[in-house]
Amino acid sequence: MTIVKTIPEIRALRRKLSGTVGFVPTMGYLHEGHLALVKQARIENSAVIVSIYVNPTQFGPKEDFAAYPRELDRDLELLREEGVDIVFVPSDDEMYPPEFSSWVDVEKVTERLEGASRPGHFRGVATVVTKLFNIVQPTKAYFGQKDAQQTVVIERMVADLNLGIEIVAVPTVRDRNGLAMSSRNIYLSPGERQAAIILFKALTLARQLSQGGEKDAGKIRQQMSSLIQKEPLAQIDYISIADAETLEELNLIDRPALASLAVRIGKTRLIDNMPLE
Amino acid sequence: MTIVKTIPEIRALRRKLSGTVGFVPTMGYLHEGHLALVKQARIENSAVIVSIYVNPTQFGPKEDFAAYPRELDRDLELLREEGVDIVFVPSDDEMYPPEFSSWVDVEKVTERLEGASRPGHFRGVATVVTKLFNIVQPTKAYFGQKDAQQTVVIERMVADLNLGIEIVAVPTVRDRNGLAMSSRNIYLSPGERQAAIILFKALTLARQLSQGGEKDAGKIRQQMSSLIQKEPLAQIDYISIADAETLEELNLIDRPALASLAVRIGKTRLIDNMPLE
Repeated sequence: MTIVKTIPEIRALRRKLSGTVGFVPTMGYLHEGHLALVKQARIENSAVIVSIYVNPTQFGPKEDFAAYPRELDRDLELLREEGVDIVFVPSDDEMYPPEFSSWVDVEKVTERLEGASRPGHFRGVATVVTKLFNIVQPTKAYFGQKDAQQTVVIERMVADLNLGIEIVAVPTVRDRNGLAMSSRNIYLSPGERQAAIILFKALTLARQLSQGGEKDAGKIRQQMSSLIQKEPLAQIDYISIADAETLEELNLIDRPALASLAVRIGKTRLIDNMPLE
Repeated sequence: MTIVKTIPEIRALRRKLSGTVGFVPTMGYLHEGHLALVKQARIENSAVIVSIYVNPTQFGPKEDFAAYPRELDRDLELLREEGVDIVFVPSDDEMYPPEFSSWVDVEKVTERLEGASRPGHFRGVATVVTKLFNIVQPTKAYFGQKDAQQTVVIERMVADLNLGIEIVAVPTVRDRNGLAMSSRNIYLSPGERQAAIILFKALTLARQLSQGGEKDAGKIRQQMSSLIQKEPLAQIDYISIADAETLEELNLIDRPALASLAVRIGKTRLIDNMPLE
């Protein structure tokens, strides 16, 4: 496994690769969710490249950029065990030199949910992913369904800017209680971790109601909200029942829909989602 | 010479090319300025691809998108004579399908000059050029120095988004009176065409003053303005003496500088520029 820090180095290595290249962009502090992406990339491609970069431009000024957990040596060990070929670990100066001033803006789908709660977040995501795609030039890139809106944004951007890369969405990995794997779970105290299961419970309730024939999205949101409000440590940011493709909120569930939510557990903001089938 | 209209077609042709690919993006209605780009691309590359596309997103709502001159058959004949390999002539639907919503924004350098006079212009340029670069995947791309700010914007964007393409700026081609070649010259009546020489005269004056030792940019702008005001058909949009790299306005000419201007001749808005040596 080769570890490189600069863009010229990874470009040189990339040029030597033939066959398909699977790419997994990450912010490090890897968990089973990331490793599921890497495993799928490993199965489907001749070579696998992983990036580890905590991208400052996708964090708001009051968000947890400085506190975001980092543990590079452990990450590299995990990636070595998965048979990754190249790990790209750029510095901030390498990605954003002082004169940097170009941005990728995806409109519409970014105005809702995470985009509404985190202004500028998806601009940072779209910009860094465009940069990484242009540097790595993968055949396929792998993203976790836990960040469902992110996947929709990246797919829109790839189509609009003709990036010519196949986006693969990999199902969310959960612990035995249903809590979705997230690097931010490290922020949770044992009591908060127990409380955080409420996200999965609310999504499961939404799916059960939908499967039971409930078509009124408002009623499902209401029941999810009531359930979460019973958890004293939880504070709802948003609850959404939306068109699974466009993420526009639904009144009537008359097409494939996605239930998603953002909830603060203590000071930690968690997101999760589940398709309603 | 192969003429293609769809993105899948040009991608398929591109994959078959080995060696370097020179790319000249144009809006058609080709003149000697465009052909200078094509000739240089032809000399420097194994294959040459030209696009002809009047990009609607770089025109303001009150600008001349509908009236912009088009003459495809003549353009294709000229490109055939220059030994071009592939011409890409996409439709608006091919470039901007209904759900399109991603944009490339270059900040700072786009806030001045053409960017200030034409809000949204460079957003449209940066977006369509990113798309075309991703579709064509050239080794080098050729732009005319007449659109000096455009070249600076594209260079900034290519560096920031890691597009990995070499940008070549080709000197402006002028008629025997000094008028810079432009597709918009077709709008000029014979009398206006004569009046339009004032742009070149003002730039030549600026260079002469600079070469004569004048370091005060304000004095040079003033003399250019006085000269242009003597031409009854001319109305100044802006006159700039700026840092040749950043396009920031200069008070003192203490570094490589670019004189540039936008002037309306009757209803036709013309731009031109000249380095001050």
